[in-house]
Amino acid sequence: MVPMNLLSADATADYLVTGVWSTKAADEAKKIGKVHIAATTKAEQFTRIPRAEEIVLSRGAAYVHMTSNNTIYGTQWKTLPDVGDTPLVSDTSSDMFSRPIDVARHALIYAGAQKNMGPAGVTVVIIRDDLLARSAASLPVMLSYAVHAENRSLYNTPPVFAIYMLGLVSRWLIGQGGLDGIAAVNERKAGKLYAEIDRSGFYRGTAQTESRSLMNVTFRLPSEELEKQFIKDAENAGLDGLKGHRSVGGIRASIYNAFPEAGVDALAHFMREFERRHG
Amino acid sequence: MVPMNLLSADATADYLVTGVWSTKAADEAKKIGKVHIAATTKAEQFTRIPRAEEIVLSRGAAYVHMTSNNTIYGTQWKTLPDVGDTPLVSDTSSDMFSRPIDVARHALIYAGAQKNMGPAGVTVVIIRDDLLARSAASLPVMLSYAVHAENRSLYNTPPVFAIYMLGLVSRWLIGQGGLDGIAAVNERKAGKLYAEIDRSGFYRGTAQTESRSLMNVTFRLPSEELEKQFIKDAENAGLDGLKGHRSVGGIRASIYNAFPEAGVDALAHFMREFERRHG
Repeated sequence: MVPMNLLSADATADYLVTGVWSTKAADEAKKIGKVHIAATTKAEQFTRIPRAEEIVLSRGAAYVHMTSNNTIYGTQWKTLPDVGDTPLVSDTSSDMFSRPIDVARHALIYAGAQKNMGPAGVTVVIIRDDLLARSAASLPVMLSYAVHAENRSLYNTPPVFAIYMLGLVSRWLIGQGGLDGIAAVNERKAGKLYAEIDRSGFYRGTAQTESRSLMNVTFRLPSEELEKQFIKDAENAGLDGLKGHRSVGGIRASIYNAFPEAGVDALAHFMREFERRHG
Repeated sequence: MVPMNLLSADATADYLVTGVWSTKAADEAKKIGKVHIAATTKAEQFTRIPRAEEIVLSRGAAYVHMTSNNTIYGTQWKTLPDVGDTPLVSDTSSDMFSRPIDVARHALIYAGAQKNMGPAGVTVVIIRDDLLARSAASLPVMLSYAVHAENRSLYNTPPVFAIYMLGLVSRWLIGQGGLDGIAAVNERKAGKLYAEIDRSGFYRGTAQTESRSLMNVTFRLPSEELEKQFIKDAENAGLDGLKGHRSVGGIRASIYNAFPEAGVDALAHFMREFERRHG
């Protein structure tokens, strides 16, 4: 919906390409207008977020698009890129509600609920008022941000159950000390796993240190055989879902808000034991 | 999505306009291609479904679109229109799973789940294989029937809870004797209310007899004052939601699958008592 509403055939949008989701987003935008890749770390297998000096914005871009957290590569933006007056659009699907974000520096934030906010089937969109004027009247009504905004998200029958769940999760979050509270928990959780990775040379984190994600901790073992063994032994120990995305292999621990700290402790313990036996 | 996938700028789609939803559907199609209104009963305030001889199809239409049940006007197609070889597309959102339908005579059926099938937030689409070839590669992936079909509806993370609920409702339906079983219940339920309407001149059905909906029973009272009194007294008797849509006024009893027959009996009883006091 972002390019359909904010881009036109002769305009250019800047994309910060840091993984699979931002690549797909850029591909979709090409169907609507021109796309300029303002920065990408593809040549380094997306193991890090671009540095500020690597970002080359185009003049008069319709917007700059970024993906705040890259689930497959285990990287995450730590600070927002400086895009000047160009509207910053961020897909925060995989880290929304995991830490405070500076909403005011964004022109549009969108996030599918299914990682930290609620069940799959609802997307949260925060859009700056002035951008609504860009939604062409020729757009299908269901795809127009302006129509949804005018109708206070009630143009159609919304997914009421998913929204209700999102409300319950939000209340739970407030009880956890809000975004500051959960961010502290998430830093502690991720920190425990990165500490195991850094403790010796046995595990090797795939994301470069300064770009490490608090949501998805990705690492390799000395061999693919050991990785298979690790995944198998972990499952026997009750630790599921550790296989990395099929496109990159390795190990991935996804530790979204709902994943308990005790589970992280169990995994850290398992990692130490596994290294002791196989290191 | 129907016009985006099946229509093109220089092609024509035929629309059977029988109420608010089919009017909106035709308006959306106009954004993509040409629209021919093959029949409409707008001049009669949508109080009936067009008769077979009133339908004038255009030559070589991309498809014919109909809305099987009109929630606001309380009308419903009793037999499918004869459209020859033109693909028949039906929005069955408000009566899907309420009665058997001849799937083979359709080229595409779509239905939001929220009336008879499950919670809001998922739409069921049944599409004939040959139509998938019409989805242009230039379409946004999320709006392409071909992409969803190729990926067995798993291109994106689907609304899993809504789908799970739809599965539970389907099992419940099988326990009710399937679509034949629930159709008999729905005919009996609607029949009881239409019998009250037809018993005397006090209540006046707004839909013409041959087009009466089994899902939405709409009627008027001798005056708007009496209608207000009816709605108020009904609420006091525990019968909620009887106010007609604000665009047409009057009374509307929506008796989808989930509405119990005992509720219909209570309403029929209330109607008799109200007429006795005010008739």
